[in-house]
Amino acid sequence: MNEAMKNVLQQVFKHPADLRLASRSGQFTLPTAGHAAGFIQANLMIVPKDQAFDFLLFCQRNPKPCPLVEVLAPGQLEPACAPGANLATDLPGYRVYRDGVLVEERSDISALWQTDFVTFLIGCSFSFESAVIEEGVPLRHVALGCNVAMYRTNLACVPSGPFQGNMVVSMRPVKSRDVAKVVEVSSRFALAHGAPLHVGNPQELGIHDLSKPDYGDFVPVMPDEVPVFWACGVTPQSIAQSSRLSFCITHAPGKMFVTDRRG
Amino acid sequence: MNEAMKNVLQQVFKHPADLRLASRSGQFTLPTAGHAAGFIQANLMIVPKDQAFDFLLFCQRNPKPCPLVEVLAPGQLEPACAPGANLATDLPGYRVYRDGVLVEERSDISALWQTDFVTFLIGCSFSFESAVIEEGVPLRHVALGCNVAMYRTNLACVPSGPFQGNMVVSMRPVKSRDVAKVVEVSSRFALAHGAPLHVGNPQELGIHDLSKPDYGDFVPVMPDEVPVFWACGVTPQSIAQSSRLSFCITHAPGKMFVTDRRG
Repeated sequence: MNEAMKNVLQQVFKHPADLRLASRSGQFTLPTAGHAAGFIQANLMIVPKDQAFDFLLFCQRNPKPCPLVEVLAPGQLEPACAPGANLATDLPGYRVYRDGVLVEERSDISALWQTDFVTFLIGCSFSFESAVIEEGVPLRHVALGCNVAMYRTNLACVPSGPFQGNMVVSMRPVKSRDVAKVVEVSSRFALAHGAPLHVGNPQELGIHDLSKPDYGDFVPVMPDEVPVFWACGVTPQSIAQSSRLSFCITHAPGKMFVTDRRG
Repeated sequence: MNEAMKNVLQQVFKHPADLRLASRSGQFTLPTAGHAAGFIQANLMIVPKDQAFDFLLFCQRNPKPCPLVEVLAPGQLEPACAPGANLATDLPGYRVYRDGVLVEERSDISALWQTDFVTFLIGCSFSFESAVIEEGVPLRHVALGCNVAMYRTNLACVPSGPFQGNMVVSMRPVKSRDVAKVVEVSSRFALAHGAPLHVGNPQELGIHDLSKPDYGDFVPVMPDEVPVFWACGVTPQSIAQSSRLSFCITHAPGKMFVTDRRG
């Protein structure tokens, strides 16, 4: 079955465990936005134990891009936020970085797993999207079934050990009349990056062409809309690249781990 | 000069740097409650680098007793929250634990310092006390110039690696008509343990005699008052004991690090 057919046949998963099982069996390989409304979705970052303190401290120092949902003990694969889940198989896609270079995208990382791997689950802005939509504010990338647009910025993260680099943001076009409402709703979701970092003027963030996102899919901004930017959990992937981290595994952009925890 | 004379002569320090310098020179050796109103005060925990990941994860898993104000890079002594300060000298008192046993209380730890020590500054409930007093709610231990009463409880912390044990709480007697106000005010100070954990009924926390605190000074609860309990930053000291941690240094109870950061 090709990607287009999968898209046509795609169902919306209501229950996190159903989406995880479909990911585990390889049947679901798409971005998770719009699925399992009301449940916390998480970005994934796996580093060897000898880098785990520095990365945990990086998250503590940069809570907007890296709000921690859960950090697992070394070698552990079943998180408390989703009993029965397996973090090596239950995401729709993974990325493997070596020396800061993306070397592989795969749907299962069981074969790479080491007992000294420490897994970080980092909050994701998808979690507040269903709340925003429920308030009557449409989100175009969800309506179109595509991935949210993400951009590298010129905003430096607070460094920790070898982890240093700039923040990545996600962008959603919002009608001017809805901007305040979107700020209000998202600010209640601290684990989902909270309130926006920035409203309007992408050039101030060092983003010169909105039509060319660094990750995800371009979503046009209409004349009555303003681009609204949130800190993004893809930041650790960008940091892995700029820090030339010797090894890490992350989720593939937009393809999150869906927890059983309500946001 | 003996402790009693010092008490008589004691001035109230308005500026954090003045209190830190008086601590550094050995002139000030008392609890810091009531000093430097409006500035964040912090509990101290120092562990060797090989335990730093597990302790940082312990704090992340137990944010009520261990809200992180700052974590320093290994070997570093000058925190970003107080430029010019020296964490080995600027607290009024330190405690040294070996194999979970308190072996020494001292006013300066420079002679013990190692380059692999990692320092954690953990929020302290003193930070919200001035806000509570400003709202017209008196706090007896501040008025009496004594230390707040602290108790070990039967509430288990979420463990991380070798760090496990029960939570320590601080107790303040509050008039029934002021309880809601105190909850409201303290809940705004997430870095100072936030809202109370428990109101009334100490026996539910496993505290059988309020007149015998495990740390600090007993403060009587009057007939028109209710004992109100907050998660307490002395928890890591109790954890060091119950976990038989090989080595750590903490502040002496009530003798905090006073930062330049406003709470």
